[in-house]
Amino acid sequence: MTAKNAFYAQSGGVTAVINASACGVIETARKHSDKIANVYAGRNGIIGALTEDLIDTSQESADAIAALKYTPSGAFGSCRYKLKSLEENQREYERLIEVFKAHDIGYFFYNGGGDSADTCYKVSQLSEKMGFPVQAIHVPKTVDNDLPITDNCPGFGSVAKYIAVSTLEASFDVRSMAKTSTKVFVIEVMGRHAGWIAAAGGLVEDQGIPVVILFPEVEFDKDAFIANCKEKVEKFGYVTVVVSEGAHWPDGKFLAEQGTRDAFGHAQLGGAAPVVANMIKDALGLKFHWAVADYLQRAARHLASQSDVDQAYALGEAAVEMALEGHNSIMPTVVRKSSSPYQWEIGKAPLSEVANVEKMMPMEFISSDGFGITDACKEYLYPLIQGEAYPPYDENGMPKYVTLKNVPAARKLDAFEV
Amino acid sequence: MTAKNAFYAQSGGVTAVINASACGVIETARKHSDKIANVYAGRNGIIGALTEDLIDTSQESADAIAALKYTPSGAFGSCRYKLKSLEENQREYERLIEVFKAHDIGYFFYNGGGDSADTCYKVSQLSEKMGFPVQAIHVPKTVDNDLPITDNCPGFGSVAKYIAVSTLEASFDVRSMAKTSTKVFVIEVMGRHAGWIAAAGGLVEDQGIPVVILFPEVEFDKDAFIANCKEKVEKFGYVTVVVSEGAHWPDGKFLAEQGTRDAFGHAQLGGAAPVVANMIKDALGLKFHWAVADYLQRAARHLASQSDVDQAYALGEAAVEMALEGHNSIMPTVVRKSSSPYQWEIGKAPLSEVANVEKMMPMEFISSDGFGITDACKEYLYPLIQGEAYPPYDENGMPKYVTLKNVPAARKLDAFEV
Repeated sequence: MTAKNAFYAQSGGVTAVINASACGVIETARKHSDKIANVYAGRNGIIGALTEDLIDTSQESADAIAALKYTPSGAFGSCRYKLKSLEENQREYERLIEVFKAHDIGYFFYNGGGDSADTCYKVSQLSEKMGFPVQAIHVPKTVDNDLPITDNCPGFGSVAKYIAVSTLEASFDVRSMAKTSTKVFVIEVMGRHAGWIAAAGGLVEDQGIPVVILFPEVEFDKDAFIANCKEKVEKFGYVTVVVSEGAHWPDGKFLAEQGTRDAFGHAQLGGAAPVVANMIKDALGLKFHWAVADYLQRAARHLASQSDVDQAYALGEAAVEMALEGHNSIMPTVVRKSSSPYQWEIGKAPLSEVANVEKMMPMEFISSDGFGITDACKEYLYPLIQGEAYPPYDENGMPKYVTLKNVPAARKLDAFEV
Repeated sequence: MTAKNAFYAQSGGVTAVINASACGVIETARKHSDKIANVYAGRNGIIGALTEDLIDTSQESADAIAALKYTPSGAFGSCRYKLKSLEENQREYERLIEVFKAHDIGYFFYNGGGDSADTCYKVSQLSEKMGFPVQAIHVPKTVDNDLPITDNCPGFGSVAKYIAVSTLEASFDVRSMAKTSTKVFVIEVMGRHAGWIAAAGGLVEDQGIPVVILFPEVEFDKDAFIANCKEKVEKFGYVTVVVSEGAHWPDGKFLAEQGTRDAFGHAQLGGAAPVVANMIKDALGLKFHWAVADYLQRAARHLASQSDVDQAYALGEAAVEMALEGHNSIMPTVVRKSSSPYQWEIGKAPLSEVANVEKMMPMEFISSDGFGITDACKEYLYPLIQGEAYPPYDENGMPKYVTLKNVPAARKLDAFEV
């Protein structure tokens, strides 16, 4: 077998550990240099493949690649770009094949979520539909934890740990202040469709914190919500609310869309947290504070979960190994063998069953009142936040995250407009 | 010398390390049980003294007290309550003396910021003005870093580290996404009057991040701000903005007050971050994300600075030692001996010079364009974020923060209305 090159790209929203998967892919490929000559990374994801903007990862030292394991974000750049079907956009597929041929690409590793799995699936069919041999393996990644079949998705465990710990810390804070000041703390977390991240905030209940969760899976019931908050404030003196950005009214309208207008009459893009906080203040007259974690949560490599980092790396490694075993059109998965003690192994799922399928929170993970999580949910979540995988820090007290050189490979083709 | 009891209370907004100071006070007092029989803590700060709601800290194990060193928030509860002058409110001072007499309090340790220093100063004068012998020592604490004389204030270093690291992580994130998606990231940080915390976000410049800072010390100039952001986006492809909650227009109006109204016409309490983000979008048409860290930043014990924890403890320890040396009406301070390598020692400042004095950022710490920090500022900041003082975690992956028993001491007096 002649050595072929591999193409690797990052797709969609980045995470604290997507670079750990990149590290797994590149380090494993380097161990098999007889079969994988080089790994070219797409600059800014699949756009780099279409525009022939390839990064020559062989120009990066072993130390730099190893540092990816503890560097958040997408080291090669990511993008939000979903390939249309072959029928609708043959031009782009033909271009991909042209680029792959020019750079002798035999392996396609795509690191992303649901949309990316779909793109990867389409590429995996190039071989059959367009007569070009490429093995396409999807490496799962999404803080939303909404990919099917795999027990969980790399990126989620670290966000879950960050949100659980941050919610605990802020709850301790409001507990300290509640006597004369703030009695309500609202934290808004990511998750437009699935409430997995919000659920992680619910873990603070085990530490004695009164917490109310607003999931996208549960239609918002304002009266029940206010009553729940009121009861907790009366009992504990304060309450913590975790609101998912996807929390919505029965008619589907997001809580964040409150028809708020600025001084010029423009619709104001708010955030669910201030809306919910003001709602409680109007109803109960309580002083509040609110936070919107936004990118801080998904980039928080400083508090990554060891489970998450291990799995992100292992899935990148497994993708390469599966490719070398001759697989195509699959995604390596995490298979849970036991929750206590936590044991997992790598499995595989066909991309045809992964693409465009979104995994919601199972209803048995949400408490009967709709505002909390069940023991089954906690049993699921805790293993994913186990262990602290800290990055190294420099003498100034800043983390030693790596910025790669990202040297472009020489172009061989004409330009292409995306 | 007969042993007296000590009173300790936490005041104002809590921090990631105020409990480390409590730990320093209580552990040091326990070492001198011949002179300090017991430490009573005020439940919810000075209110606990006025209402005779005293916590008997002798009921807490050595392990529980030691755990305060890595537990954020105020373990005994804090409050926002400033004593008026003796002339205006003799009733409360008489009550304090009554409580101190009833519980044989000879030492008063008050852990807080500027307002608290003022209260502590007033208590220190009880001896002279009302003939009651009590030694009052102020233990500095404030994330705002605005106390005079001391080089820095416990609580600030850990917030600064959290903001510097979080801003770096989120900037890496937006850098990854900028090609096809988010190009502007705005993070709002605490600091209504002083821009110390915002300045910490500026440290990411040393990591190659294009950052624009909006300080409360600099009147907001919208045109210059937009031009600065535009220039950075053109050069780097993205920009990170750190906005202080106290950033304001030339007329003094906070950026957060944009006259925003909700659907019912109520003034909407927003936050400066969404206002600034929308401002950039309107002017430059760029996609943005924004975060408001709020309590997450000051409670983030999971990323505390070792310098900060060490100093918080040392100042609590020094307060007790100074009291035992016979001092009254002072505050132990941090005295910087050298920035590189970082060396500091404990000094002392008279409360008459601390109370009601607010330390702003010196103008030589702000770059000439008003949107960045100078090398002198960086030299000041880095030592304060050096070292990572991680808390221990349990097997589930959650930090092992302590919640004290907080057993009340038996009451000896009639009730008192605050």
